[in-house]
Amino acid sequence: MKKFKKIKNGNVTSPDGFIADGIFAGLKSAGEDKLDLGILISEYPCEWAATYTDNKIKSSSIDYCKEVKGKIKGIIVNSGSANCCVGEQGLIDARNITNKCEEIFQSKSPFLMSSTGVIGVEIPVGLIISSIEKFSPDISGGERFSRAIITTDSKTKNVSVEVNSKNGSYKIGGVAKGSGMIHPKMGTMLSYITTDADISSRNLTKILRKSVKNSFNQIDIDGDTSTNDTVVVMSNGASGNKIDTKEDIDKFQDALDYVTQYLARLIAEDGEGISHLITVEVKGAKNENDALEVSNAVVSSSLVKTAIFGKDPNWGRIMMAIGNANAEILRDKIKIYVNGIQIAEEGKSISFHYQSVLSALNKFQIDIVIDLGIGDGRGMAWGSDLTEEYVIFNSAYTT
Amino acid sequence: MKKFKKIKNGNVTSPDGFIADGIFAGLKSAGEDKLDLGILISEYPCEWAATYTDNKIKSSSIDYCKEVKGKIKGIIVNSGSANCCVGEQGLIDARNITNKCEEIFQSKSPFLMSSTGVIGVEIPVGLIISSIEKFSPDISGGERFSRAIITTDSKTKNVSVEVNSKNGSYKIGGVAKGSGMIHPKMGTMLSYITTDADISSRNLTKILRKSVKNSFNQIDIDGDTSTNDTVVVMSNGASGNKIDTKEDIDKFQDALDYVTQYLARLIAEDGEGISHLITVEVKGAKNENDALEVSNAVVSSSLVKTAIFGKDPNWGRIMMAIGNANAEILRDKIKIYVNGIQIAEEGKSISFHYQSVLSALNKFQIDIVIDLGIGDGRGMAWGSDLTEEYVIFNSAYTT
Repeated sequence: MKKFKKIKNGNVTSPDGFIADGIFAGLKSAGEDKLDLGILISEYPCEWAATYTDNKIKSSSIDYCKEVKGKIKGIIVNSGSANCCVGEQGLIDARNITNKCEEIFQSKSPFLMSSTGVIGVEIPVGLIISSIEKFSPDISGGERFSRAIITTDSKTKNVSVEVNSKNGSYKIGGVAKGSGMIHPKMGTMLSYITTDADISSRNLTKILRKSVKNSFNQIDIDGDTSTNDTVVVMSNGASGNKIDTKEDIDKFQDALDYVTQYLARLIAEDGEGISHLITVEVKGAKNENDALEVSNAVVSSSLVKTAIFGKDPNWGRIMMAIGNANAEILRDKIKIYVNGIQIAEEGKSISFHYQSVLSALNKFQIDIVIDLGIGDGRGMAWGSDLTEEYVIFNSAYTT
Repeated sequence: MKKFKKIKNGNVTSPDGFIADGIFAGLKSAGEDKLDLGILISEYPCEWAATYTDNKIKSSSIDYCKEVKGKIKGIIVNSGSANCCVGEQGLIDARNITNKCEEIFQSKSPFLMSSTGVIGVEIPVGLIISSIEKFSPDISGGERFSRAIITTDSKTKNVSVEVNSKNGSYKIGGVAKGSGMIHPKMGTMLSYITTDADISSRNLTKILRKSVKNSFNQIDIDGDTSTNDTVVVMSNGASGNKIDTKEDIDKFQDALDYVTQYLARLIAEDGEGISHLITVEVKGAKNENDALEVSNAVVSSSLVKTAIFGKDPNWGRIMMAIGNANAEILRDKIKIYVNGIQIAEEGKSISFHYQSVLSALNKFQIDIVIDLGIGDGRGMAWGSDLTEEYVIFNSAYTT
C-alpha cells in the first residue's frame, strides 16, 4: 500500500484549518498580476518548527521569529525589502507589523514574519500595517499566498500530499519561493509547510532538520547563502491524527521529505537563464553525511556547471569536484554515470560512446550518478548549470 | 633602510647557482613561441619545502613528490597533461622521468616533478624521456622556464628580490603559472621559488606555509581547487648567507611574502575575460585567521563578482558575503569602503556620492576595504570579477 499520494493542485491551504491570502500592497512597482504581501493563518494555534539561514548577518525578521515562544497563529510575508542591515528599526518594525496581525485577526497567539528583497532598505512599515486589514484569507488562498511571496521566480511552487493513517488520513501542504539562477539579488529561499496532523514542536523540530538537510540544503544556484532563508512547518492537528509513535513519525518524515525535495527541485529548475537541471546522486559513500557533502560539491562546482552548459562530457571536472568534498574518497574506487551511461570506472576514464553521451547532454535534465565504492551512504543534490544569461542578468541589475 | 629591493626582470635564475630551460617537446599542439617542458636545476643540492593542493584527488606527480626525501637537485614540469586519474601508471611514469633527469644531469639527488593539463589523460612518457637530453639549462633560462610551465595564461609571471643581510646579500626568485578566470580547465596553480640563502628544510617549511596562507590561498578565480596545485621553495645556500636567527628568519619571511603576494596578484589579474582585479583588505578582525576568512569569502562571492562586473555599488552583497565567512562578525560594527569611498557604516548604508562610486568602479582595480571593528586582525585577498566571457570560454572548451 502506498503510504501517501500527491494531491492535484495542492498547496498550503489543502490541509484542514488553514486559510491564506496574497495582495498587492505597493511594496514593489505594480505590474500585471503582481502581489507583494501574503498571510497564512491557522484556525487553531499551531505547534511549529523553523530553520533559518547560516549567514551570520540575518534579517531582522528572523531575529524577530527567534523571539517567538509557544504556539503561533500564522505568518506574514513581504517581498520588496529584505528588512536586513537596517539597524534596530528592523526588529521594531517586525514587532509592530505582527502585533497588528494579532489585532486584526483577533488572535492571542503570535504571528511569524518573513521578508525578501533588497538588503539595506527599510521596509515601508506604515504601508504594510495599513494593508493588513485588506486581507481576505480563505481556504482557496494558498495559490494567492504563493504568488505574493515570489520575487523574480518565473512560477509559483506548491505541493500537497495526503498520508494514510490509522485514524483516516492527514495532509501536508508546502510552498516555496526561490530565485532561479538568474535572480540571486532576490536570492532568498523561503518555504512554509502546513499540516493538519497533530505533532509536538519537539518532534517537528527533529523531523524538519532532517528533511531540510536532505532537500533545501542540497540545492546550489550560485554558492551564495542569503541573509533571509527561512523554512517553517506548522501543525494545527485539525485532522485529529496524533503523530507520536516511531512508526507514525517515520511515515510523516517520508511524506515531509517528499514535499521538501519536490519544492527543492522546483527551485533548482526555475529561472529563464538556466539550460539544464542537474541532479547528482551519490551512493557507496561511507555514510549519509559524506554522500550529501560529495553530491553538494559536484552540483556547486562552477567548472561542472559550465561543462554541462557547454555539453562537454568532461568527467575530469567531476573527479576534481569530488576530491574537493569534505568526505572520505578513494580515487581508484570511483564510478561515474551521466544519464545512465558510465563514463568512469576505478577513477579512470573508460571508453564510452561519445555520441551517446553528447546526445544525453542535449536533455534538459542531467542525472549524474557517482558510486564511491566505500559503503552504503546515499545522498542527492539539485542544481542548475552556469550560463551567460546568469552573468548578464546579475551584472545588469541595478540597485 | 629598506630590507629588500625588487630586481628588474628577475626570475628563478636570479639567485646564484640556479639554471633553467624550457623547450617544446610536442606535448601540446605546436604554436608560435609555445614551450611545454621545463627544468629548473641547482648547482648544489637544495634544502626545500612544498605545499600541495587540498583536493583529495591528487595528481600522481604530487604523489611522487611526497615520496622524495632529503635534498633535491631540481624540478621538471610538463604542461599538456595533469598526470591525474590515470591509475598506478602515473606514479611509475613520474619515477621514470625523474630518474632520467638524475642520469642526464649526473645527480645523486632526486628531482621533483609537476604536471598541468587535462585530467584523465596519460602523459606521453616516452616523448618526455627522450626530450630531457635536449635541455640546455643556463642562468638565462628562468624566462624560458616560465614560458614552458604556462598553459593558457596570457603572460609569464616572474619576480625576484635582493635582501640585505649581515653577510652581504642574498636573493629570492619566484615563478608562477595560474589560469586567469577564463582558463579553469587548465586551472592548476604552480609556483617555484629559489633562493641562494642557506635555510634548513624545517625552517623553510614553516616560512612557506605562513607565506602561502597569506598569498596563493587568498586568490579566487572560480572557487574550484585543482588536483595539481603545487608550491615549492628551494634553498641552495650559494650566497653563503645562513638564515637561522629569529631576526634573519623574519626578514626572509617578509621578502618571501612580497614574492608570493606579487605572484598571487599576477595570477588574479591574468586572463582576457576579466574586466576587474578585485582586492579585499580586511582590518579590525578578531585575529589574522578571521581577516583571511572574511577577505576570501568576499572575493569568492559570485554575487560580489557580478556586481563589480556590472559596476553596481551593491554594498548589500558585500554584507551578505561577510556574513557567510567562518569568522566572528558583529553586524552593527562593519564599515565598508570602495576605492577609498565609504559606503557603509555601523552595518548600514550611508549616503555616499553615487556618481563618485560609479566612477571608481570604472577603474580596472577595485579595492574593497572592510573594517570589522572588533580587533587588530588584518588580511588580504585577490580575485577577479565574473564576466560573460568566463562562461562562454569554459562552455566552448571541448575535451
